[in-house]
Amino acid sequence: MSQVRVHNFAVSLDGFGTGEGQSHEEPFGHAGRRLLDWFMRTRSFHEMHGESGGTAGVDDAFALTWGHDIGAEIMGRNKFGPQRGPWEDHEWTGWWGPDPVFHTPVFVLTHHPRPSVEMEGGTTFHFIDATPHEALRQAREAAGGRDVRIGGGPTTVRAFLAADLIDHMHIAVVPVVLGRGERLWDGLEGIEERFRIETVASPSGVTHLTFTRRR
Amino acid sequence: MSQVRVHNFAVSLDGFGTGEGQSHEEPFGHAGRRLLDWFMRTRSFHEMHGESGGTAGVDDAFALTWGHDIGAEIMGRNKFGPQRGPWEDHEWTGWWGPDPVFHTPVFVLTHHPRPSVEMEGGTTFHFIDATPHEALRQAREAAGGRDVRIGGGPTTVRAFLAADLIDHMHIAVVPVVLGRGERLWDGLEGIEERFRIETVASPSGVTHLTFTRRR
Repeated sequence: MSQVRVHNFAVSLDGFGTGEGQSHEEPFGHAGRRLLDWFMRTRSFHEMHGESGGTAGVDDAFALTWGHDIGAEIMGRNKFGPQRGPWEDHEWTGWWGPDPVFHTPVFVLTHHPRPSVEMEGGTTFHFIDATPHEALRQAREAAGGRDVRIGGGPTTVRAFLAADLIDHMHIAVVPVVLGRGERLWDGLEGIEERFRIETVASPSGVTHLTFTRRR
Repeated sequence: MSQVRVHNFAVSLDGFGTGEGQSHEEPFGHAGRRLLDWFMRTRSFHEMHGESGGTAGVDDAFALTWGHDIGAEIMGRNKFGPQRGPWEDHEWTGWWGPDPVFHTPVFVLTHHPRPSVEMEGGTTFHFIDATPHEALRQAREAAGGRDVRIGGGPTTVRAFLAADLIDHMHIAVVPVVLGRGERLWDGLEGIEERFRIETVASPSGVTHLTFTRRR
């Protein structure tokens, strides 16, 4: 059975997976780049965006696992863009340009379904109003036997954790205090009991935690 | 000038420094021993309680720094005991038995001052109603040139951080999700900018963060 994976999901010391006040200019709201700085410095991130350079240490090793053997992604609507309620701007196709980094089908969870959008490079955005179980069924079908990534944001990862659908999760704890935003862990008391957990600290200051579901 | 230090202060992934529902039986409420398990396994902890055995790895190295060159501690009333409001049980002298682990003056912050209590082994509990600055002044005087430890709980550490009085802080992030209790980081957005931060992961799963105040 294909696995359900979370990668490069950064949280602050106070448990926020994103800041407050998302906008077109600031996908992570007031958090800015504070949660992603470690990731943006890696060679993997540079390559993903067609650039050379970047670090090749433990941060990069984790960053690189993001794309390995992934056949589809599920993301929340707020990862896709800053619009709320019924879609008004149909021209908006995400923060990732004409050739998004995914190169697979991407299922965007929304209470306002709309026609799929086919991008360059193999990414197609499907907009579905579905429970985690149902979204996963569709994503698995589209993934053709490969794994499904739960791409975030915090609300989406939390929903899949609450439904006990995550097999593998990589969390990067970033030593910043955001104070406000969207918390990852709310309602998940005792979640650690379901997983084997490893921790490794990076010289960047970030701590990588991997959660592997107990069988 | 003597330094102000925090040691062995454990927080959950969701940022709680203690659980909900403190009682005589459960100093950390519903958190039980989950935040302290790593500490209780160390040789330092065993020695502190007159026992042999315990681990001697990185957890122990951090644990041991707790007592080095400390001349006084400041703690919150809820670390001292589970009573709230005016003192009713004057027999209660903390969780630490007749010869508490501190062996220095200990200043207990409370809105209900009461006479000092002298214990065996050099520990004296003083009960004072004071701001962080005033409490620190008194503790420094009592410490005779040695450092002052801020002993917790979360409310007390937070108050000293907010007042920018902490020089060195050791935080242990424990990979558990508590869901409820007292949060350490509330109101401290951006606090990391005041410190140089190092992180090291322990095989126990705990991540040790040290915060050293920028000069």
